[in-house]
Amino acid sequence: MSPVITLTTDFGLSDAYVAAMKGVILGINPEVTLVDICHTIGPQKIAGAAFILETAYRAFPQGTIHLVVVDPGVGSQRRAVVLRTPSADFVAPDNGVLSYVIREALPEIAESEQQAELGPELEAFAITESRYWRTPVSPTFHGRDIFAPVAAHLSLGRSPADFGERLTSLVMLPLTRPHHKPDGTVVGHILHIDSFGNLITDITTKYLPSKDEPLSIEVGEETIRSLSRTYVEGEGLLALIGSSDRLEISAKGGSAHDLLNAKVGDEVRLCPQG
Amino acid sequence: MSPVITLTTDFGLSDAYVAAMKGVILGINPEVTLVDICHTIGPQKIAGAAFILETAYRAFPQGTIHLVVVDPGVGSQRRAVVLRTPSADFVAPDNGVLSYVIREALPEIAESEQQAELGPELEAFAITESRYWRTPVSPTFHGRDIFAPVAAHLSLGRSPADFGERLTSLVMLPLTRPHHKPDGTVVGHILHIDSFGNLITDITTKYLPSKDEPLSIEVGEETIRSLSRTYVEGEGLLALIGSSDRLEISAKGGSAHDLLNAKVGDEVRLCPQG
Amino acid sequence: MSPVITLTTDFGLSDAYVAAMKGVILGINPEVTLVDICHTIGPQKIAGAAFILETAYRAFPQGTIHLVVVDPGVGSQRRAVVLRTPSADFVAPDNGVLSYVIREALPEIAESEQQAELGPELEAFAITESRYWRTPVSPTFHGRDIFAPVAAHLSLGRSPADFGERLTSLVMLPLTRPHHKPDGTVVGHILHIDSFGNLITDITTKYLPSKDEPLSIEVGEETIRSLSRTYVEGEGLLALIGSSDRLEISAKGGSAHDLLNAKVGDEVRLCPQG
Repeated sequence: MSPVITLTTDFGLSDAYVAAMKGVILGINPEVTLVDICHTIGPQKIAGAAFILETAYRAFPQGTIHLVVVDPGVGSQRRAVVLRTPSADFVAPDNGVLSYVIREALPEIAESEQQAELGPELEAFAITESRYWRTPVSPTFHGRDIFAPVAAHLSLGRSPADFGERLTSLVMLPLTRPHHKPDGTVVGHILHIDSFGNLITDITTKYLPSKDEPLSIEVGEETIRSLSRTYVEGEGLLALIGSSDRLEISAKGGSAHDLLNAKVGDEVRLCPQG
Repeated sequence: MSPVITLTTDFGLSDAYVAAMKGVILGINPEVTLVDICHTIGPQKIAGAAFILETAYRAFPQGTIHLVVVDPGVGSQRRAVVLRTPSADFVAPDNGVLSYVIREALPEIAESEQQAELGPELEAFAITESRYWRTPVSPTFHGRDIFAPVAAHLSLGRSPADFGERLTSLVMLPLTRPHHKPDGTVVGHILHIDSFGNLITDITTKYLPSKDEPLSIEVGEETIRSLSRTYVEGEGLLALIGSSDRLEISAKGGSAHDLLNAKVGDEVRLCPQG
Repeated sequence: MSPVITLTTDFGLSDAYVAAMKGVILGINPEVTLVDICHTIGPQKIAGAAFILETAYRAFPQGTIHLVVVDPGVGSQRRAVVLRTPSADFVAPDNGVLSYVIREALPEIAESEQQAELGPELEAFAITESRYWRTPVSPTFHGRDIFAPVAAHLSLGRSPADFGERLTSLVMLPLTRPHHKPDGTVVGHILHIDSFGNLITDITTKYLPSKDEPLSIEVGEETIRSLSRTYVEGEGLLALIGSSDRLEISAKGGSAHDLLNAKVGDEVRLCPQG
């Protein structure tokens, strides 16, 4: 069974940087299956890359290797890491791009924590053993010369511990979480705006009231009076639970982003009615 | 021999939705070869997706599975289908996105027909057997949770009949056909504008006069006095038979779209000369 | 071990032309691994395609087949070729798109040379044996009907000589080279602007002074006082050696392209200090 390596970068679609990484991987393991997750992450947008990865990685088979190269600090002292979770491996700079992956294993971690202390369920290793790298290493393209060969060697069955010393903590981004107001309102935030213009929030299903309680959703000046189940119910602005189990604001036949002129970070409020 | 699954969606290139579908497929059949046809179909543009599929599917090997997820009605009562033709399988919502595939098998179908009655050469099945689906099914992402796993199971050799009951009809779009005027002029329409700015029409080679008869082509205010064979013959606007055997308006070294400000649906006329 | 075929075209991402080529290849050799290098080359920009190919092909394993279809002369008398180098095969129109590949083997070739006379290390063959082509051949899409099937047959182990007669020369673009001024200044040019806005020049490392000599870099009205090693050193505009061993102008945390309003072909000067 050929192992899967996914690629997530901010390299765009008009250069050959992604292809160079794939060439290096195929030179080491020609049997690997390569899958692009996304390469149009805004340049050096670590939080955006972290979220895109979050929406895809669980759909991949056990043991998939996720290679993430959004790396504004390339060539600096920032660490490079291999992270092994019970379901997948990740190869990335230690700059927060794995924050959602880490938080899944450590759900109680504080929002303000800038370093995640890892327990036994998350094994992280520094990438320091240069014998697995391409030589010479370009100080500006570790994706091709360090991350890609490490992912390829990992796909051949090498242990994460072979690439360097075990780490006890990894960098965390300040991921937002919704909070509760005294009146019961849940105040969340827009995490991502997808290409349909849907506004995806940090309000997951666990923040929703039990099934039959009424609620309304406020975003900007607008109030949505109920939850829809699909994009085709109701009229105009809709609120529903999207495919990553998050509250999402959508517009029937159009773009909620265009209608609301909303941006990542804006508040969305879930209000008990009555 | 590893089966091929192609993917055509309107999911764009800036989200991980396509990758999530690929992850699901590889989890079911790791030996499959995945090929992207196009993911930049305009959001929910069913006719555009139908045409893009039409220009690619015949180039693929016998038995290829074409997965098409342009699905504005996701979560509604619209049906999901597997269509088996003598050359390929298609997995898609029953919303007209397979209209060109169906019309190839049923060339006499009327332009106004909104349902194609299928004969024995086209076997269509509803996708209703939930045991093949990912669970839970998100009401907003059947691509990942229903269509992708069905395509993957099909690639493992499962019969289309395993996914649900046989259907006797499928939804058709009102595909335009050229018509003849009393003076012999053929009146066709622009179906698609490609990224070079070529205007691709519904006038197929069977509407052309025999080889040596003179003709002219009218589009907007412009008249083109002869057919070229390639993009490099003549000057300025050209008319030629493109790679999908359709009359195409092109501009030497430029974009016919920019020159003519034409749009999909505009008339193109093929006139007998003399 | 499955052979690798890469694809570089100007077909864009909104049509099915690339997919049609892949379908044809998989119909001939289902075991091939397909890798996209780039499809957003500006329409018919041969020099741009040549450079993109240059930045990727060395990263691929020995024996990779690079299929390059940027072909404004499709259907004309321009030749189609298979080029075998010691490390890889190339299938392309003979229009200069392989100029960097050829120059690597023939480093002394004059900048003004419009035809490269090939020595024994470069074996080139015309593609004329139509038995390997798809039929009928569309005069407007040799990518699908000639280049793709030839690459696929090559990946099955067929000899380049099977596709047509040996050629003794290939078309060269006028690739710029830096020149020296009497005062020791090296005058180079911007070859490519990548999606981060980095300005990549034709000044390779061999034009740099020995390690400890001071230097400054001039681009437009700006002077950069030293070479950085990475994108994170210094402030504002940076100059460094990029991942293709070329002098590159970058902007810390931003886009040098936006800051300088530079374009391909503009001069960049490397000046001895003192």
